[in-house]
Amino acid sequence: MSDDVGKVYLVGSGPGDPDLLTVKAKRLLESADVVLHDKLPGPEILGQIPEDKREDVGKRAGGEWTPQEYTNARMVELAEAGETVVRLKGGDPTVFGRGGEEMVHLAQNEIPFEVVPGITSAIAGPEAAGIPVTHRDYVSSVSFVTGHEDPTKDESAVDWRALADTGGTIVVLMGVGKLPGYTAELRKAGMDPDTPVALIERATWPDQRVATGTLDTIVDVRDSEGIEPPAITVVGEVAGERDRVIEFLEGA
Amino acid sequence: MSDDVGKVYLVGSGPGDPDLLTVKAKRLLESADVVLHDKLPGPEILGQIPEDKREDVGKRAGGEWTPQEYTNARMVELAEAGETVVRLKGGDPTVFGRGGEEMVHLAQNEIPFEVVPGITSAIAGPEAAGIPVTHRDYVSSVSFVTGHEDPTKDESAVDWRALADTGGTIVVLMGVGKLPGYTAELRKAGMDPDTPVALIERATWPDQRVATGTLDTIVDVRDSEGIEPPAITVVGEVAGERDRVIEFLEGA
Ligand SMILES: C[S@@+](CC[C@H](N)C(=O)[O-])C[C@H]1O[C@@H](n2cnc3c(N)ncnc32)[C@H](O)[C@@H]1O
Ligand SMILES: C[S@@+](CC[C@H](N)C(=O)[O-])C[C@H]1O[C@@H](n2cnc3c(N)ncnc32)[C@H](O)[C@@H]1O
Repeated sequence: MSDDVGKVYLVGSGPGDPDLLTVKAKRLLESADVVLHDKLPGPEILGQIPEDKREDVGKRAGGEWTPQEYTNARMVELAEAGETVVRLKGGDPTVFGRGGEEMVHLAQNEIPFEVVPGITSAIAGPEAAGIPVTHRDYVSSVSFVTGHEDPTKDESAVDWRALADTGGTIVVLMGVGKLPGYTAELRKAGMDPDTPVALIERATWPDQRVATGTLDTIVDVRDSEGIEPPAITVVGEVAGERDRVIEFLEGA
Repeated sequence: MSDDVGKVYLVGSGPGDPDLLTVKAKRLLESADVVLHDKLPGPEILGQIPEDKREDVGKRAGGEWTPQEYTNARMVELAEAGETVVRLKGGDPTVFGRGGEEMVHLAQNEIPFEVVPGITSAIAGPEAAGIPVTHRDYVSSVSFVTGHEDPTKDESAVDWRALADTGGTIVVLMGVGKLPGYTAELRKAGMDPDTPVALIERATWPDQRVATGTLDTIVDVRDSEGIEPPAITVVGEVAGERDRVIEFLEGA
């Protein structure tokens, strides 16, 4: 271990448009010795990072996912060797991004670190489709929830009824595959089957796509349009605002 | 009205640190003809905008708030005169920022517009204090909610019981004054009185302050520390992560 321990920056990349990097993230990507990343930041941002300082911790050669333990150990190893490390994550690092775990791992290993927030896809995705996640006239809350519950957890399953009862906007991440399950749960919980629902695929990427329907129709829409991950699901009246603004929304 | 209608950019400033502007926001602040803003972006960001293109739509001379109607009309007026307008908002424009209303107003007046997401204080505030808003091991959702319900609304009051029942992290914006009310509601809804709570005042500003307690103690902590708006309240187990990482968290 060198005397000068390097620092680790847990950095959010935003949803994928390089213009939505923060000023700080952009500077750190230029100055870092090593950038540990997975695929979620997307081709445009990853393409701007010189090959020789990129390390993909998303997939291993055999097609397997890199275990979180490897990424954790690698951050510590590089920092102890004196390197300045950017751990680049899609969107924001602590919104379903395991940033919390990585922070604790770094602290336990006495590695100085900083968190650099990123624009989360949970907000920018809807916006890119003309959908505000809150609305003063009729929404007092917005909830972000994972559609893909960790199968190894037996506790803390998502309580879709409680989410429906909040009366607020529901934004589901990792929610393409399980769409039939949770739209059914939300209807069972008493949500109006005509509640507008939007799917935003690869938000802010050059090939962004948006598909809209209702709690009742959105599974069919997903299938006929062939919507695939990564995508954001927005459930709530706000999804209906899109129709009111889309004609004048540019850059969408 | 000129033939060339200008464009309006609804831009989020992030929580206040100029380094957390997006690359796009920074560029637009430099190139815009006029920047309509209120006070929330904070002194550091506002100080970077040349005086002669700033228009404060936060307070009027007499100390009154500028009505939303004025801001709406002014955006349209400037765009119709051919100006490129940045409507700068603290954090993200659609997170309790009335961005949704402004989008609709622009569309109704046939003004082309774009939404440029910003880093919301609801995520960056907790992070700046060492708190991740989600955690894979024990939180499947995070809800953002307003503590300061619009008194002119009779519907859609916040359902604190439903929020408690989600089992997820609760992040309250505009929640300093009403802290006693909603902490009591959450306890009544069955939340453990020992649930960790953190208050983050002026997150990412040079004079950021953090105060921590529990659902039971946080009102006293607020009073003894003199926490004032703007501040973020985080309620949930994640608020306890701060103690595990703070020693190695830099830039906080
Ligand atoms: C592991 S989560 C990470 C979320 C990320 N930390 C964030 O704040 O955006 C991965 C999920 O994020 C969502 N996501 C991330 N980037 C996206 C994009 N550009 N468009 C749509 N969804 C995206 C998808 O729901 C995807 O399944
Ligand atoms: C009208 S809301 C606007 C929120 C904003 N659109 C956002 O995304 O951060 C105003 C509230 O945002 C929160 N807020 C905004 N900036 C903040 C900061 N730098 N530190 C703490 N709280 C902040 C406070 O709760 C404040 O009362």
